[in-house]
Amino acid sequence: MRLARPLENLIDQLLKLPTIGPKTAQRLALYILKMPPAEARQLAQAIIDAREKVFPCSRCGYLTDSNPCAICQDESRDKEILCVAEEASDIIAIERTGYKGRYYVLNKNFNLMGDNNLEELNLDPFIKQLAAGTIKEVVLALNPDIEGEVMARYLAGIAVNHGVKATRLAHGLPVGGDIEFADEITLRRALEGRKEI
Amino acid sequence: MRLARPLENLIDQLLKLPTIGPKTAQRLALYILKMPPAEARQLAQAIIDAREKVFPCSRCGYLTDSNPCAICQDESRDKEILCVAEEASDIIAIERTGYKGRYYVLNKNFNLMGDNNLEELNLDPFIKQLAAGTIKEVVLALNPDIEGEVMARYLAGIAVNHGVKATRLAHGLPVGGDIEFADEITLRRALEGRKEI
Repeated sequence: MRLARPLENLIDQLLKLPTIGPKTAQRLALYILKMPPAEARQLAQAIIDAREKVFPCSRCGYLTDSNPCAICQDESRDKEILCVAEEASDIIAIERTGYKGRYYVLNKNFNLMGDNNLEELNLDPFIKQLAAGTIKEVVLALNPDIEGEVMARYLAGIAVNHGVKATRLAHGLPVGGDIEFADEITLRRALEGRKEI
Repeated sequence: MRLARPLENLIDQLLKLPTIGPKTAQRLALYILKMPPAEARQLAQAIIDAREKVFPCSRCGYLTDSNPCAICQDESRDKEILCVAEEASDIIAIERTGYKGRYYVLNKNFNLMGDNNLEELNLDPFIKQLAAGTIKEVVLALNPDIEGEVMARYLAGIAVNHGVKATRLAHGLPVGGDIEFADEITLRRALEGRKEI
């Protein structure tokens, strides 16, 4: 197959992105060739700007273009509650719930199954915040898998050592989910966490 | 939800692309933020280069960065057979079959159901090639739908007027397909086109 080299190069670059397979990469590249040149430039510039102007907040680790980030600067937010998450994308999801506390993002692709160990997490800014004494509760919003479980226990230990309450997100049936199709661990957790109505 | 403005802008730009929904746009944008800066620049540059350096070949309409394109310049290709396709992406697929003739790409999002009519197709380069007298057969590789059918008949008429044979791609069962699940029109065409073995 003969493809013009700049087209082939664009397809190769798009293929490096997650969720983009060969067919989608080709389709996107051919679409980009048909975009008005100004729009193609805007897309390219948006990539460069995002990569260069967005960085983790030095206080909470959330992605920001000002330091500290808008959430850390927001005086109306509850300073007594700190939600710990693995990734900025988790914060985006939690923000949609209307949560009004602050955050701490671990910002690490953690892989306990691989070579990582918990000491590699840079927790200094986290410990500093706990030591400051304002925080009353740490909500561990870690993924409900083995790694999340291990990390949650580790972080909860640190919080308790600073006299701060540590909580985890509740496990249970997803809203709109079907009991028939729930896996047994989720169902067991939902039973254990049952509430009076 | 508070997102850093350059991140929000990147998500908006990615959302303009086909097959990219809000979740994928967010995932891609967050991935781009974690790419090494040099790689993010390469991706951005690939978009600009592809858009600026690739254009339709003046002879066949296929996408190229040199004029005429590599296929038109290839003297080993059969000059007597011309394959007409709607889009450059169709050529990429046909090239994979080992087809060795030349091409003519209509390069138009044709929409007979909308306001377009056949006169809007710029067919001058096509007619010029037919008039030159080298071409013996025009293979109409148009999509097997109503618009492709109408366009095929129109182009076949032009070819025959120039004393050139016009053919269409065969209809039939896709290889690996299942007779049970074939639609009735495809199955009827497969029956009509049956071959002695």
